[in-house]
Amino acid sequence: MKTTIQNVINRLIDPVGRLTETVDSLYYGNPQAEVSGIVTAFMPTQRVLERALELNANLVIAHEGPFFQHKPPLDSTYGDDPVFAAKKKFILDSGLSIFRFHDYWHRYPQDGIMLGLIEALAWDTYVQKHEPAYSVMEIPATSVIDIANYLKKTLDIPCVRVGGEMDTLCSRVGLLAGYRGGGQLVIPLMEQENLDLVVYGEGPEWETPEYVRDAVWQGRSKALIVLGHAESEEPGMKLLADLLQRQFPEIPVHFVREKPVFQWI
Amino acid sequence: MKTTIQNVINRLIDPVGRLTETVDSLYYGNPQAEVSGIVTAFMPTQRVLERALELNANLVIAHEGPFFQHKPPLDSTYGDDPVFAAKKKFILDSGLSIFRFHDYWHRYPQDGIMLGLIEALAWDTYVQKHEPAYSVMEIPATSVIDIANYLKKTLDIPCVRVGGEMDTLCSRVGLLAGYRGGGQLVIPLMEQENLDLVVYGEGPEWETPEYVRDAVWQGRSKALIVLGHAESEEPGMKLLADLLQRQFPEIPVHFVREKPVFQWI
Repeated sequence: MKTTIQNVINRLIDPVGRLTETVDSLYYGNPQAEVSGIVTAFMPTQRVLERALELNANLVIAHEGPFFQHKPPLDSTYGDDPVFAAKKKFILDSGLSIFRFHDYWHRYPQDGIMLGLIEALAWDTYVQKHEPAYSVMEIPATSVIDIANYLKKTLDIPCVRVGGEMDTLCSRVGLLAGYRGGGQLVIPLMEQENLDLVVYGEGPEWETPEYVRDAVWQGRSKALIVLGHAESEEPGMKLLADLLQRQFPEIPVHFVREKPVFQWI
Repeated sequence: MKTTIQNVINRLIDPVGRLTETVDSLYYGNPQAEVSGIVTAFMPTQRVLERALELNANLVIAHEGPFFQHKPPLDSTYGDDPVFAAKKKFILDSGLSIFRFHDYWHRYPQDGIMLGLIEALAWDTYVQKHEPAYSVMEIPATSVIDIANYLKKTLDIPCVRVGGEMDTLCSRVGLLAGYRGGGQLVIPLMEQENLDLVVYGEGPEWETPEYVRDAVWQGRSKALIVLGHAESEEPGMKLLADLLQRQFPEIPVHFVREKPVFQWI
């Protein structure tokens, strides 16, 4: 029996149930088409989409949308912008199906993005608790610089940004993937969860980082490591590829990683 | 005749007229107190405030607020967070006046933050046009890597983030200070202003940077340099110190720079 795009989508959303308010949907493609192969990715960049075609995969499952903003753009958003127009034409010509898998994956019984990140760090045994928007680890006391280097090595990222002192020993670590670094969420956690260190993907520079700066100036042992948005969420999309491969053993499933969106000069 | 805090504030807002909706106000202090000295800063960190006391300056004029968010926090926002509580107590005990000067400075006949940035870069002669949220420069054709290194040197910042190819020659440059890197603002500019390069302070990683990535993959000569939020706005607060020193020659005026909020590992 053939597996359709819709079959895969149904399997993906099954653990959560259908959400009424979500950015997740089949942005392009034909739900009744047979799946020839699946690519998962953090961001459906044009390179990722072209790679899917090379891999003979007609379904791309991506955490973010293809058009540079969180919500799907209106037709009018980019007018006749040539980058938008060329990418949209490429997608339509390719026949690729693109399923956005953001909200559902975050709402799995265990947030799939967070699970992927923790597995990539091999911090599974250190999990002290999971909350919807963050997890708390209790790791053996380690200096900020050693943790930063460990994160770079295990996640294979070229550079992280660090707030606080390099030699501060950290044991209680708050972990937040993606754009969850805002002060409204993170600052109260520092106290409530008695954190030594927060590690997040992305957040406004004048909120949590400035809080950590003042905390350290006041003599408190607080620290921050900023991974980058994609860097913090890609492991979760790699984990998704592994899950789908087990669920659909007859379909080739690939995780396609992008290069870092920035070079650090 | 003595100069009061209110005298200085009046002079600061005079070129704009009183705004009804603004985050700018005297957050702490006594408007009738005589000004002993003025410190300008991007962010009124606790170190900056302590430095103001050392300099015998009782008026701190800062672009951002003291409490880690754009809007002034409610009393309930941070509960009994010890960093917040200690900083607030320090401010009240010190008697310092803190005036937030964000919206007014951006709305000066020439945006003071942008003016300071352009002067620091010595790009005055390259200005092609000023718009409220951005300026366009026409510089001699220069590679991205050379521009990145020039920005680092002139602004004295340790690291910038770059999107695109290092050897792309750029002539038309869009410049945006602070948190103006969002795709809704920047992406349309790329076409409308025929930009080769955008330089901004801060913005979401999945918007403009991903647009530039796809544009480059499609073979277009587009590039992006991200300075950091504070890094892009500090020169404007230094320029303000110079302006105030001319307006109030009898009062000592100091610009106090912070260290970068991040270390890059």
